[in-house]
Amino acid sequence: MSEEPPKPTNTRRGRHKLTLDEHYEGVLARDIAVLARTLTLMESSNPDHQVRAEELLTRLMPHTGNSVRVGITGAPGVGKSTFIESFGMHLVEQGHRVAVLAVDPSSGVSGGSILGDKTRMTKLSASGEAYIRPAPSAGTLGGVAARTRESMLVCEAAGFDVVLVETVGVGQSETMVADMTDCFLALMLPGAGDELQGIKRGLLELVDVIAVNKADGEMQAAARRAAHQYDVALKSISGRAHGDDVPEVLTCSALEGNGIAEVWDAVVRRHRALQGSGRLAERRGRQNLRWLWNLVDQHLELTIRDHPALSGLREQLEESVVEGTQPPEAAARQIIDALGLRFPRVTPKAP
Amino acid sequence: MSEEPPKPTNTRRGRHKLTLDEHYEGVLARDIAVLARTLTLMESSNPDHQVRAEELLTRLMPHTGNSVRVGITGAPGVGKSTFIESFGMHLVEQGHRVAVLAVDPSSGVSGGSILGDKTRMTKLSASGEAYIRPAPSAGTLGGVAARTRESMLVCEAAGFDVVLVETVGVGQSETMVADMTDCFLALMLPGAGDELQGIKRGLLELVDVIAVNKADGEMQAAARRAAHQYDVALKSISGRAHGDDVPEVLTCSALEGNGIAEVWDAVVRRHRALQGSGRLAERRGRQNLRWLWNLVDQHLELTIRDHPALSGLREQLEESVVEGTQPPEAAARQIIDALGLRFPRVTPKAP
Repeated sequence: MSEEPPKPTNTRRGRHKLTLDEHYEGVLARDIAVLARTLTLMESSNPDHQVRAEELLTRLMPHTGNSVRVGITGAPGVGKSTFIESFGMHLVEQGHRVAVLAVDPSSGVSGGSILGDKTRMTKLSASGEAYIRPAPSAGTLGGVAARTRESMLVCEAAGFDVVLVETVGVGQSETMVADMTDCFLALMLPGAGDELQGIKRGLLELVDVIAVNKADGEMQAAARRAAHQYDVALKSISGRAHGDDVPEVLTCSALEGNGIAEVWDAVVRRHRALQGSGRLAERRGRQNLRWLWNLVDQHLELTIRDHPALSGLREQLEESVVEGTQPPEAAARQIIDALGLRFPRVTPKAP
Repeated sequence: MSEEPPKPTNTRRGRHKLTLDEHYEGVLARDIAVLARTLTLMESSNPDHQVRAEELLTRLMPHTGNSVRVGITGAPGVGKSTFIESFGMHLVEQGHRVAVLAVDPSSGVSGGSILGDKTRMTKLSASGEAYIRPAPSAGTLGGVAARTRESMLVCEAAGFDVVLVETVGVGQSETMVADMTDCFLALMLPGAGDELQGIKRGLLELVDVIAVNKADGEMQAAARRAAHQYDVALKSISGRAHGDDVPEVLTCSALEGNGIAEVWDAVVRRHRALQGSGRLAERRGRQNLRWLWNLVDQHLELTIRDHPALSGLREQLEESVVEGTQPPEAAARQIIDALGLRFPRVTPKAP
C-alpha cells in the first residue's frame, strides 16, 4: 500500500469529457466519480447528451435488474432521512451495496422538498458500500422521475444490489416511484388515539409495507396502537379476496434502530414471494411497457403543445369546453384535424 | 281531450332520416321518440353520423348542464335495478324528471353485465317523467363511455333535471362514471360481522355516498353494523384533514322503500355544498378538460397503433423493453422518430 493517498479520481477525470467506453467501464468497475458523472449525463436535458445517455444505457442493460428496488415515502417530519440512514446501515452490515436515489416533486404547490444532501445521512454516505445521489434540481426537461429510472439502472450496473428510491408523500410522485420499484414502503407517524393521521386514499393502492416510525420512548404504545389501527383499517378496506396482498404493518424506531431489521425482512418476504411466483418479472415488464408508452405520450404531448398548427387554437378550444359552450368531442376533432394526424392520411393530389 | 289516442310519434318519424333541425327541436320538446333516435345518433360509430352528432350537440350545448348528475355503482346482486326503480320513483314523486343511462363494461373479463332493459324497472319506465335508456351494445368504436357523456348532455337538453348513470363495480368504468357525474353513489350489501365485504381501494377515491342496501327484515341489524364499519374505516383512512369530504354512509331498503329519501337528501347535500362553494363548476370544467384531452389521446393512440411507419417496429420494441434488453427511452425515441413527429420539424429543402 502506498503511503501517499491516491488522488481523488474525479479531479483527473474531470478534465476531459468521458468517452462512452470510459463511462461504461467506470460504471461496471463501480468507480464512484464516473458513476456520478454518468448519472449527471442521464439527468441532462441536452439532446446530444440524451442520445449519448441512451446509447450508454443500452450497453449497460445486460448488467441491470439484479437489485431489490424499494420505494420509500413519508410526509415531512416522519424521520425519513434518519430511517434511510439506519435502514441503509443495516443493509450494509448485512453485506449489501446500497444506492439511494430521490424523486423530488418540488414543482408542485403541495410538494415538499427533499434535501438532496449527503449531510443528511452522514454514516451511510461515509460507508464505502453505499452511494447517495443528491436529488437532481427540479425543472429538468422531461421530468426528474424519468431520469430516476435511468439512474436506478446505472446503479444496478454498478453492482448496487439494493436501490432505495425516496419521495415525499405527494400523490403523483408516489405513483411514479411505486411504478419503478418492486416494493413500496410508507413511513407513518404514531398518533395518539383519535389523532391518528389518515392514510391518503391513493397510497392504499401502492403500498406494500407500512412502518410506523418513532416507536421509541413514550411513543412506543402510541405507535403500536397506530399500527394496529392501520392494520384493521387496511384489512377491512382491501377485503378478504386479496388477503395475501394486504400490506404488512410494523413499528420501528430509526433513531434507536429498533424494528429496522424487521422492516427489511418484510421487504425481502414481499420480494421473494413476487420472485418465486414469477410476478416480479411480470411487474417489471409491465412497468417497462408503461414507461415506454408514457415516454411516447410525453413526447407527443410536447409536440402537440408546441405545434404551430395549434397556436391560439388550443387555448380557445380549452376555454370553450371548460365553459361548456362546445362539446369536447368537437374540440378534440379540431385538434386532431389541425395536427394533420387523421388516419388514413389523405394523400395530396399531384398538381 | 280527443277520445282517439294520438298515434305514437315514432311510427311516423321513423319513416325518414331526421334533419338536424328535427333532432334539435324534438329533443328540446322532449319528444321521446326523437330523443331515442338522437341518442342512437350519438352512439353511432359511423364517421358521418359522428360529424352530425357533434354539430347537433354543439347546438344543444346552451341547454345542457342543468341536472344533478349522479353516478351509481354496485356489484351484481346488490339490487341496483330495484334501487334505481325505487330511487327514481321517489324523484318523480318529488317533481323531478329522471333519465337513466348505463355504462356497461361488458368487454372485460371481470365485467359484469347490465341488463339494459326497461323490463328491469317497470314502474319507472311507465312513468311519463322518466326515461330509461338501454345500455348500448358493447364494442362500439371509441368506447361506450364516451357516448354516455354525450347522451347525458342530450338528456339535459331534453329537460331531465336528474341523470342517473349506472355501472357495475369494475374499476375502469367506475372511474369513467365518477368523472362524468357530480356525485358518485356506491351500493353495498350488508355483511354479517367478519364477512363484511371489502371496499375496493380504488372506489374510495371516487365515492361520495355509500348506501348499504337490503336493510330490511332480518338484515336490518347487519346492514347497520356494516354501515358503521364502513364509516369507521373510511374516517380512519381518509383522515381528519379532509373531514368534510369523507363519504356519507347510509342504509336503505330499495325493496321496502326505506331510507331512499335519505339517500337522495345526502346526494342533494353534496350537490348544494359543491354548488355553493363554486366547486361544482370547477369539477365539471376539469371533467371537460380531461374528456377533451382523453379524446385527443384516444385518437392519437389509434393513429399510432395503425400507423404504417410502426408496422412490425412496435411489437419488436415492446418485446425488447419487457425483456429489458433496451431502455424504454431509446424505444420511445425510435417510435417518435418513425412517426416523424419530432418538433421542430425539419422542413425539406426545395430541390
